[in-house]
Amino acid sequence: MPVSANDVALAERLAEAAGAAIRPRFRGSFGLEAKEDLSPVTLADREAEEAMRRLIIAERPMDGIIGEEFGTRDGSSGRQWVLDPIDGTRAFIAGRPIFGTLIALIEDGWPLLGIIDQPIIGERWLGVTGRPTLFNGKPAQARACRDLKHAILATTSPALFDDAQLHAFEHLDAAVTSTVLGGDCYNYGCVASGWMDVVVEAGLKLHDFAALVPVVEGAGGRMCDWQGDPLHAGSNGEVIAAGDPARIEDILEALACRGH
Amino acid sequence: MPVSANDVALAERLAEAAGAAIRPRFRGSFGLEAKEDLSPVTLADREAEEAMRRLIIAERPMDGIIGEEFGTRDGSSGRQWVLDPIDGTRAFIAGRPIFGTLIALIEDGWPLLGIIDQPIIGERWLGVTGRPTLFNGKPAQARACRDLKHAILATTSPALFDDAQLHAFEHLDAAVTSTVLGGDCYNYGCVASGWMDVVVEAGLKLHDFAALVPVVEGAGGRMCDWQGDPLHAGSNGEVIAAGDPARIEDILEALACRGH
Repeated sequence: MPVSANDVALAERLAEAAGAAIRPRFRGSFGLEAKEDLSPVTLADREAEEAMRRLIIAERPMDGIIGEEFGTRDGSSGRQWVLDPIDGTRAFIAGRPIFGTLIALIEDGWPLLGIIDQPIIGERWLGVTGRPTLFNGKPAQARACRDLKHAILATTSPALFDDAQLHAFEHLDAAVTSTVLGGDCYNYGCVASGWMDVVVEAGLKLHDFAALVPVVEGAGGRMCDWQGDPLHAGSNGEVIAAGDPARIEDILEALACRGH
Repeated sequence: MPVSANDVALAERLAEAAGAAIRPRFRGSFGLEAKEDLSPVTLADREAEEAMRRLIIAERPMDGIIGEEFGTRDGSSGRQWVLDPIDGTRAFIAGRPIFGTLIALIEDGWPLLGIIDQPIIGERWLGVTGRPTLFNGKPAQARACRDLKHAILATTSPALFDDAQLHAFEHLDAAVTSTVLGGDCYNYGCVASGWMDVVVEAGLKLHDFAALVPVVEGAGGRMCDWQGDPLHAGSNGEVIAAGDPARIEDILEALACRGH
């Protein structure tokens, strides 16, 4: 079932609801806790996801939900809303206004619609499969990159790689002009807008990457895993975003040193 | 000579002039080049520094200038304006709105006044020795940190450390609750505002750190080098900022493993 205007409108309302929950807690009383895996979670994460879930249950009772904080709610429509209320909780806690709310609509495991929303400085990327990505309502365009040696590469933290992944990443890092660290989902928006060229990460969950795919690809870029395969609900969390699809082979080649 | 209201007013005008030069080039045509040391520089860096230098020469012809892009202009007043038009040029180029313009006034090599200005999202920290630091005109207060194990640590990139520094940093990294990467001067503003606890970096030049000292210390924090000595024009570029001065000894101890 193609993405409808109603789907897009609902996704934008979800982003608004999440932002309204997050903004009062940014740089304020955010109620930090640690989850079982020791990753941080805040009341802002929980309240933002609850606000989004309430809207989905009211408006789309047949759709499933996969949320970072409150898990899976089964549906019967074949569609699921994938929610990460705050991607970059560490950045949020540290007062950096470049975390993001991620909202995706997937069908049979494939992302159809994605939003990256930065509610503090008011920036939103909206991607829908087969349509031009919008940044704050205007078309976003990833940029050409003739050679990796001219590329700006981003990754949130090399500490998130295992040893083999780190080794592979270091090969890629050595091949590009500049690498910036930190940034979480915001980096993928920067690729969609043509400000960065490549993002490479690993260990991502479905809620971390589902929304990114329509955003980057609708801007002319490409996303895939470290084997070059498209990203879907069963992907292993190794993620590549390239603003210029012509550079995917070079990126895969640089990363392929893993294990050698 | 203590900092006057006129000094503060001029420093704020310098920030305005730099921001006016930078904003039109952010995410636009910024004219990237590489300097001799291969670090990137843009027309935005150059135009912002030129705008600031013009103002200083017109208003304070006797003061010296030390600028990242156009070097030193001797003065006769014993005071120097230390300018870094874009601290975080890599972040600026990559479209991230958390780079900053750094403006310091130093006398006999000691920082008396500092500004960290983020001209895109409109955030400014103003520090003057002996006075409360202001964030967008309101007092900023660094926070208490009872134990390093509760601390949020930031550094722009571990790649900027040499091997011994990296080894020391990894000890500190292991002692804190969370480490965020990227951020440049913005991290020091976050310490002054009580959102982060510690920043540790190395390889900084005077224009990278002079402005940070009055900002962090006026908010109740402390800055020093990796030996615990205060920062001045002759410091070696190893920098610590702690929101809670009571943690400095713990930080120094964690870093002291260097070379062992």
